[in-house]
Amino acid sequence: MNRRPHIAALGGGTGLSSLLRGLKRRSLDITAIVTVADDGGSSGRLRRELGVLPPGDIRNCLVALAEDESLMGRLFQHRFEGGDLTGHSFGNLFLAALTDLTGNFDLAIQECSRVLKIRGSVLPSTLAQISLWAERADGSRICGESAITSGDGPCRRVWLEPEPVAHPPSLEAIADADLVLLGPGSLFTSVLPHLAVPELVDAIAGARGVRAYVCNVMTQPGETDGFDAVAHLERVMEASRGAVDKIVVHEGPLDPVAAAAYAAQGQEPVVADHARLQALGVTVIARDLAEEGRMVRHSPEALARVLTELVADSVAPRPVR
Amino acid sequence: MNRRPHIAALGGGTGLSSLLRGLKRRSLDITAIVTVADDGGSSGRLRRELGVLPPGDIRNCLVALAEDESLMGRLFQHRFEGGDLTGHSFGNLFLAALTDLTGNFDLAIQECSRVLKIRGSVLPSTLAQISLWAERADGSRICGESAITSGDGPCRRVWLEPEPVAHPPSLEAIADADLVLLGPGSLFTSVLPHLAVPELVDAIAGARGVRAYVCNVMTQPGETDGFDAVAHLERVMEASRGAVDKIVVHEGPLDPVAAAAYAAQGQEPVVADHARLQALGVTVIARDLAEEGRMVRHSPEALARVLTELVADSVAPRPVR
Repeated sequence: MNRRPHIAALGGGTGLSSLLRGLKRRSLDITAIVTVADDGGSSGRLRRELGVLPPGDIRNCLVALAEDESLMGRLFQHRFEGGDLTGHSFGNLFLAALTDLTGNFDLAIQECSRVLKIRGSVLPSTLAQISLWAERADGSRICGESAITSGDGPCRRVWLEPEPVAHPPSLEAIADADLVLLGPGSLFTSVLPHLAVPELVDAIAGARGVRAYVCNVMTQPGETDGFDAVAHLERVMEASRGAVDKIVVHEGPLDPVAAAAYAAQGQEPVVADHARLQALGVTVIARDLAEEGRMVRHSPEALARVLTELVADSVAPRPVR
Repeated sequence: MNRRPHIAALGGGTGLSSLLRGLKRRSLDITAIVTVADDGGSSGRLRRELGVLPPGDIRNCLVALAEDESLMGRLFQHRFEGGDLTGHSFGNLFLAALTDLTGNFDLAIQECSRVLKIRGSVLPSTLAQISLWAERADGSRICGESAITSGDGPCRRVWLEPEPVAHPPSLEAIADADLVLLGPGSLFTSVLPHLAVPELVDAIAGARGVRAYVCNVMTQPGETDGFDAVAHLERVMEASRGAVDKIVVHEGPLDPVAAAAYAAQGQEPVVADHARLQALGVTVIARDLAEEGRMVRHSPEALARVLTELVADSVAPRPVR
């Protein structure tokens, strides 16, 4: 086969952009499919004031796929400080202005892709204005990504209102992918919102490529307090009707000073019980994925290595389980 | 001589951009040299809140030299409506963000020139933060471009505080030009501010190219009430130490409905007494320069025609007077 392996990676802002940063230098055709449920910060203001879709997560992914250290990439991430513009990043304003002008968020992303000369594509999961709702473990319900992440205790499930149709190119990218990735990223606010779009679930369930879930390294307060990898995977399996073939988990030492700092904020390492994960019907791929340093997060390079392995395995058709 | 004729055009926002729009399709090398004294609207807010130079006039000239109807050109002129961003044009934010990021207004203009694929160059007359002051005919003094243009009665003179040094590339463009244009544009807020920069006056006085002043078609309330072409030229001659070789004036019918509407706002046609203009030592070039329609302003095409004539005459060295 002559074509480069295709990857469709579904996620939100930070986790997905780490992944993209690592993958973009490989010989791969990458499509990032990004949630549009953000309602905080600059994105939230633009959403409320201009009626555009929240641009922040899209912007982070565009910049991750842009040439390193390019002036335009740095400009996209530049935040204004002073007066009414305080807190807005320029890239958000670029996407918002283009959407405002053309009435077309998708075209705005394409034009920014061109200006940033990105490798790959970035697509919103849907073009609909939606609200993310969560039900917490205690049964209470809460609306809005920023309210969810700033709340207390783990979530049980999330859904979107109104229930949106998917952006068709996202469905095509999934159908076309040799490897479909869910995550890394916040379970309830970056991964599961995709699985709250019924057509995306259908597309993932019917995908010919291998479907892998990249589990977070640390739990996240207000979302996954106390969750081990099984608890993460169970939510993904449930929301995707079991459409996960492999789980990628971190295995390795964590910097003890960083771990203590995280613990003080109520975050702990996500423990992966391989036997119980396998019992859910998935292949477990455990690697040292943590970035060196005081922040415990995925290393773009380590992620890229394991995913390149995965994609090499997955260009052959997936065996029927 | 193999090189295309070089034009250096000094002005402000609207008049200068009409000129550029007409000239850009000709085989000419155009440098627009733009005042940076604006303190109103979006430019004024960015200047106060971010400490950048006012981008509005520069933006108008960049867009005038961009490909017609290009998406980026339209985006640069797009104004936000909604929330804190109301009134800001995207191009102003682009220039402001780049300046904020790089600390270099000139580099910001160059990057925007690249993104807009402009024909020619746009330069600020100075990189200094300056205030424009005016003395009115009644002897009162007033600070700020927007205060000047919204005041009553004609001005007598303007100056800049602090007195700035010129942006060196602007000096080079003038030295290199076959034709140096002053105007069209507001006499006291777009043309004379250039002549309040001593180095620019020296450059114009010492230029090897022909120096032409393009006089406005209508008087402007708060600036040139009651001024005929001689009154306009006298101010320019005075401020430039007599460095004007030719004056371009409008001659032809004005739409009577438009003229009446202008009269109601205190604006009247600028009368050109050729004999008295010639007595000031300049060649008078009178043409029908008005755009057809209900607004009396320079037609980019008619301006381009007469200036192309002028430049053809002026590629030969200027005779010593």
